[in-house]
Amino acid sequence: MLTVPGRKICVVLTARTSYAKIQPILQAIQGYKGLELQVVCAASAVLERYGNTDKMVERDGFTINERVYNVLEGETLLTSAKATGIGIVEFSGTFDRLKPDAVLVMADRYEILSAAIAAAYLNIPLVHVQGGEVSGNIDEKVRHAVTKLADIHFPATKKSAENIVRMGENPEKVFHVGCPSIDLAKKVVENPALGFDLYKKYGGVGETPVLSDGYYIVMQHSVTTEPEDGRKQIEQTLRAMNRVKKPVLWFWPNVDAGGDDVSKGIRSFRENEKPDHMHFIKNMSPPDFMRVLYGSLGIIGNSSVAIREASFLGAPAVNVGSRQNARERGPNVVDVGYNENEIYDAVIKHCTGKTTSSPLYGDGDAGIKIADILAKTPLTFTKTLNY
Amino acid sequence: MLTVPGRKICVVLTARTSYAKIQPILQAIQGYKGLELQVVCAASAVLERYGNTDKMVERDGFTINERVYNVLEGETLLTSAKATGIGIVEFSGTFDRLKPDAVLVMADRYEILSAAIAAAYLNIPLVHVQGGEVSGNIDEKVRHAVTKLADIHFPATKKSAENIVRMGENPEKVFHVGCPSIDLAKKVVENPALGFDLYKKYGGVGETPVLSDGYYIVMQHSVTTEPEDGRKQIEQTLRAMNRVKKPVLWFWPNVDAGGDDVSKGIRSFRENEKPDHMHFIKNMSPPDFMRVLYGSLGIIGNSSVAIREASFLGAPAVNVGSRQNARERGPNVVDVGYNENEIYDAVIKHCTGKTTSSPLYGDGDAGIKIADILAKTPLTFTKTLNY
Amino acid sequence: MLTVPGRKICVVLTARTSYAKIQPILQAIQGYKGLELQVVCAASAVLERYGNTDKMVERDGFTINERVYNVLEGETLLTSAKATGIGIVEFSGTFDRLKPDAVLVMADRYEILSAAIAAAYLNIPLVHVQGGEVSGNIDEKVRHAVTKLADIHFPATKKSAENIVRMGENPEKVFHVGCPSIDLAKKVVENPALGFDLYKKYGGVGETPVLSDGYYIVMQHSVTTEPEDGRKQIEQTLRAMNRVKKPVLWFWPNVDAGGDDVSKGIRSFRENEKPDHMHFIKNMSPPDFMRVLYGSLGIIGNSSVAIREASFLGAPAVNVGSRQNARERGPNVVDVGYNENEIYDAVIKHCTGKTTSSPLYGDGDAGIKIADILAKTPLTFTKTLNY
Amino acid sequence: MLTVPGRKICVVLTARTSYAKIQPILQAIQGYKGLELQVVCAASAVLERYGNTDKMVERDGFTINERVYNVLEGETLLTSAKATGIGIVEFSGTFDRLKPDAVLVMADRYEILSAAIAAAYLNIPLVHVQGGEVSGNIDEKVRHAVTKLADIHFPATKKSAENIVRMGENPEKVFHVGCPSIDLAKKVVENPALGFDLYKKYGGVGETPVLSDGYYIVMQHSVTTEPEDGRKQIEQTLRAMNRVKKPVLWFWPNVDAGGDDVSKGIRSFRENEKPDHMHFIKNMSPPDFMRVLYGSLGIIGNSSVAIREASFLGAPAVNVGSRQNARERGPNVVDVGYNENEIYDAVIKHCTGKTTSSPLYGDGDAGIKIADILAKTPLTFTKTLNY
Repeated sequence: MLTVPGRKICVVLTARTSYAKIQPILQAIQGYKGLELQVVCAASAVLERYGNTDKMVERDGFTINERVYNVLEGETLLTSAKATGIGIVEFSGTFDRLKPDAVLVMADRYEILSAAIAAAYLNIPLVHVQGGEVSGNIDEKVRHAVTKLADIHFPATKKSAENIVRMGENPEKVFHVGCPSIDLAKKVVENPALGFDLYKKYGGVGETPVLSDGYYIVMQHSVTTEPEDGRKQIEQTLRAMNRVKKPVLWFWPNVDAGGDDVSKGIRSFRENEKPDHMHFIKNMSPPDFMRVLYGSLGIIGNSSVAIREASFLGAPAVNVGSRQNARERGPNVVDVGYNENEIYDAVIKHCTGKTTSSPLYGDGDAGIKIADILAKTPLTFTKTLNY
Repeated sequence: MLTVPGRKICVVLTARTSYAKIQPILQAIQGYKGLELQVVCAASAVLERYGNTDKMVERDGFTINERVYNVLEGETLLTSAKATGIGIVEFSGTFDRLKPDAVLVMADRYEILSAAIAAAYLNIPLVHVQGGEVSGNIDEKVRHAVTKLADIHFPATKKSAENIVRMGENPEKVFHVGCPSIDLAKKVVENPALGFDLYKKYGGVGETPVLSDGYYIVMQHSVTTEPEDGRKQIEQTLRAMNRVKKPVLWFWPNVDAGGDDVSKGIRSFRENEKPDHMHFIKNMSPPDFMRVLYGSLGIIGNSSVAIREASFLGAPAVNVGSRQNARERGPNVVDVGYNENEIYDAVIKHCTGKTTSSPLYGDGDAGIKIADILAKTPLTFTKTLNY
Repeated sequence: MLTVPGRKICVVLTARTSYAKIQPILQAIQGYKGLELQVVCAASAVLERYGNTDKMVERDGFTINERVYNVLEGETLLTSAKATGIGIVEFSGTFDRLKPDAVLVMADRYEILSAAIAAAYLNIPLVHVQGGEVSGNIDEKVRHAVTKLADIHFPATKKSAENIVRMGENPEKVFHVGCPSIDLAKKVVENPALGFDLYKKYGGVGETPVLSDGYYIVMQHSVTTEPEDGRKQIEQTLRAMNRVKKPVLWFWPNVDAGGDDVSKGIRSFRENEKPDHMHFIKNMSPPDFMRVLYGSLGIIGNSSVAIREASFLGAPAVNVGSRQNARERGPNVVDVGYNENEIYDAVIKHCTGKTTSSPLYGDGDAGIKIADILAKTPLTFTKTLNY
Repeated sequence: MLTVPGRKICVVLTARTSYAKIQPILQAIQGYKGLELQVVCAASAVLERYGNTDKMVERDGFTINERVYNVLEGETLLTSAKATGIGIVEFSGTFDRLKPDAVLVMADRYEILSAAIAAAYLNIPLVHVQGGEVSGNIDEKVRHAVTKLADIHFPATKKSAENIVRMGENPEKVFHVGCPSIDLAKKVVENPALGFDLYKKYGGVGETPVLSDGYYIVMQHSVTTEPEDGRKQIEQTLRAMNRVKKPVLWFWPNVDAGGDDVSKGIRSFRENEKPDHMHFIKNMSPPDFMRVLYGSLGIIGNSSVAIREASFLGAPAVNVGSRQNARERGPNVVDVGYNENEIYDAVIKHCTGKTTSSPLYGDGDAGIKIADILAKTPLTFTKTLNY
């Protein structure tokens, strides 16, 4: 009897913020008989400045097949565009060598389009997780462009699944599985104990305030359509959080056009204000981060984690500015502008620990559903508008 | 009174086959008070092997602001993908220097996505001509991906305009103007005299049969999803056209994965068969070509010109194989497989000179409509699904 | 009467450490009737992380014709190599647009070879400043490779001029003009007053110890042949300088393979040791830096400034490790290994303020000599071994 | 007892004209116990337009580890420069994956510098075959630049070995082994029978004149410093060879800036003149070519084969123009300008079959000497001027 070799699924990881969503998929594919996992780490996921997510991947027991270096320094719109071009040059070589049966990409960061084009142009079936969502900025253009290059879709919400079908995709290729980040959130809710000393395990800079009596989390990135305002925007949040009494865990921002300005704003604030209730951290493993979030009074900034995972966890979120505009949100979110007072007031009033959990972004079994479908569904690379 | 400087519209041209559609737009923008034309020639449009369309552009009185070299030799799927990456690196530099108020791209060739991404990532409003059509191959993925990156749409047909709106684009940004190639076709119908000696003006290789008693045109490219079959496919057409009695004007194929195999097939056939009723030509100015097409018995192959311009001209077309699958077609087209006998029979029966003209792809005023809209409509670069 | 247009000399600047040598050349060319200055800033010279030398250039009254972004993040040997390739792609476009009569590059950093190849392959005469020196690492390979691509040579020392001729270059093309950095040093010696508040003007992080009673300068980069040792090496110097009593002005390292490790070592040391006699600075204008150096007790580390400018200034230097191996040195330098005690002892014993000045690296008029020669010497781009 | 794994030697092949010199090295390394062969094919060696040398390599029994596509179409100085940059990006990835103990490159084509820089910047010992020669054009700049990046040198002649040492290389690293192409020539002299039907085996275009009564060979490339003259230059040779009575075997030119003009000149001449004594061939395996050369009346053009292999074979050579200026030559060569009459007269007078053989370029055992040395000599990657 012939042994049928498993389908090779190549998963692309380009940023630490995606890892919470990618990790359950890696785990499910690796554990699925009949699938062979390939992992490619790229962009900020291979850079020390952004916390070397690739090493986290390896520590979690996955083998990285190739690393792709495509981040061109400068952090302007121009260098982001050029980085995308370099990404295609590199990803296409990588896929040509790895010869996967499908390439899986996540969400909407600019470099994702590199991987998507490389796969599509090499006639490799493309799988897109988290398509169909709306956000109103360059991310949305990227997300829907990837949808039009992709052959199989795993949207996170019912509404985004409907959006993908309305955009002309074949409903048989659109699988509403929920967001895989909720897989992790579900485990955390089942077993919420932190189980580690945060300062010892993750280092970071700044003071080390006692967390046992409640603390806030801040995660605020630059907004690509407003790159020149990064510094001003972060300063409002910095000033607001300087006024709160409870400890603040502050996470450094993503690499993006304008990212340096945000980092610079934070660095300058630290040097000048020396806030004694703040601690600044580069990165955390997703399960650890989720536990820290679950145990917090709330999360402030413009990270999607505040909309997505926090909604399942029931963690209060103060969403600042336009970056998450138009993303579907549960009852845990309040929105404010780039304004110190607005932010401060919302934090004090809204961030007081757990609210009710919402199933908006999934039930916690997306990873295994994705693996199962990828093992069984036809893998094709031609399609036409389904109207 | 202040002089308001005109909007700078940067038009990207990447292939000689697009020039018939681009030329009326260039003319209209150049002639429009309040618009400033920028021209970028790229990809095969700057290569001698593909007829140096850039020089044709200059002869027509347009100034080329920059030339972009991005074709990586190899003509495999891998090199096409890498060429797209190099394209982004180059186009983004070009747009950053030219600082246009909008970038206009045409149709669906793989390198178009380079220009589209470069513009989108630099926050430059993107204008897409000829979106919304269906074709069922990688071109269709590219076309719709460009639609999702584009801010203003100029579809060629009513149905493709509807498709764009259904894909989630704002109807206020979708302008059904017809295909600009019909602008040229209209002029030819109004004044069909050839006015030049074809062999003298365009050279080419092979015999120079007398054309006054009727002739066929062949234009057949490789199919990107079937790159390894290019040679076999072209051989069927070569053998079929070897049996016809009337002269044949054969146009060399595009640069594409597989393009070399098609060229090679033609070269080998010429060396072996030395057909005395065939003449092989690299390129022709669009108006000249349109006149030649209008005066022919019909066109054979898989070029879109046989579907689009020929429909308005009423020129019979034998469409070979899958490349134009699902493109809207008028009554001038019959479809056949990659089969010598099928092709031969269709040519004999169907290609007997003029049939009725169809307005399917426009009325002949697309260029001026486009210029007018670009001068007046708001130029923005953020959008969200219009559902 | 016809006006003869001046020769266009395109000067390439890629790192802040070169600016002290480039600045006198820019000044001399800009002021020379019959020469037209073009400036291209590239690599770390356009990055904020490395102090935006490009902005310093503009503040000094020079116009930057183009900026080249070629630094690929990762700071490994692989990304340095790829950055060099990207550099060629970008520089060749830049030179093709600027059409200079000659391109001038400085010294031996890895990205310099990008500019040299771009010029040589475009048949543009290449001018090399500071060739012929020996150093024993990858820099030396780069430096001599550039010499073999260059058409005109401006070595800094008599011995390096002899080396260039021995390597087969035509003596008529080798001009021993001295190092242009000495031009600046000469001005500082003539007018040594600091004239600004260092902490106010340059910011930086760490304490702000009083400098009036003597201070040390540290400048230590990673060594490209020992990239994995960067952290260990810097730690020895950090520990040694932690023991001295006088203030220390510490300058952040260059971008290089291993550069991040050095920076990381410094950051970690700062967080843990919180040294109250140290101040950490990103960058300084060359004249300001030279004044600060001239007023110091001595300079510690592995920067070439300690060998070169400091020799003319008579500033004591403790040279650590292998980076400057085999570079010609004057009486101001003592050499030590990567060893805390060795470094400490040498600092205490040797760094006690001024020693005698040496003319080894020039007399202070290199810039004007270079401009004069570039205005008059034949500019050619073919050559052959002069044996 | 531990098995010591063999040293991995990565040989880079970038053009069919190098294959005659590379093949004996590949054979010797593959057959040498204690060495492991890696082969990388790149540039025109992987392109069908230039005869797919990579397939020849595989037919000869070697495994190609990676193919590098770096030829950017355009065949201008600008695209050659950019292709070199793309080459570095690609080669550095390749070497990083293959992890050879040494990289071996041959001669002086522009893309060789890509491989040399990639190896040098990755701290991989670089081996250069055929350094130290003089030629007076961009090739010479490239050749000596590679020498300054290389750690081990295998020059072809005594004089070029001396040149390398004079350039400052350590004599212990310079091994005068002769040119490996002579290894092949030696085998041909020992067994000169052609053993195949040239027209059947190699196809080509044009007439098929009877060769038994003597024939000429032409091989003429564009000259990179005179790219715009390629067409005029080739026309002189075409006209001269149109006047000879005996058959002419004409080989298509290399890819180079200007290469297309030469090809175009040949194509146009063929169409217009239809010479009945000429046959045009793309490529031939080196041993076959050597046999054809050995059996000819002489070789005309500017190929190095006329200087090098023909000198050992005793085949008369008419060297046209400046491309081989200053290369050492034996008694088989006469030099002429780009002039129909000069060329014609020299062919008639000088090309009359065998002259005496010269050992100038070696004895025929270079390959095995190279393999032996690479197995035993220390492999290092740092060096300094040996003065």
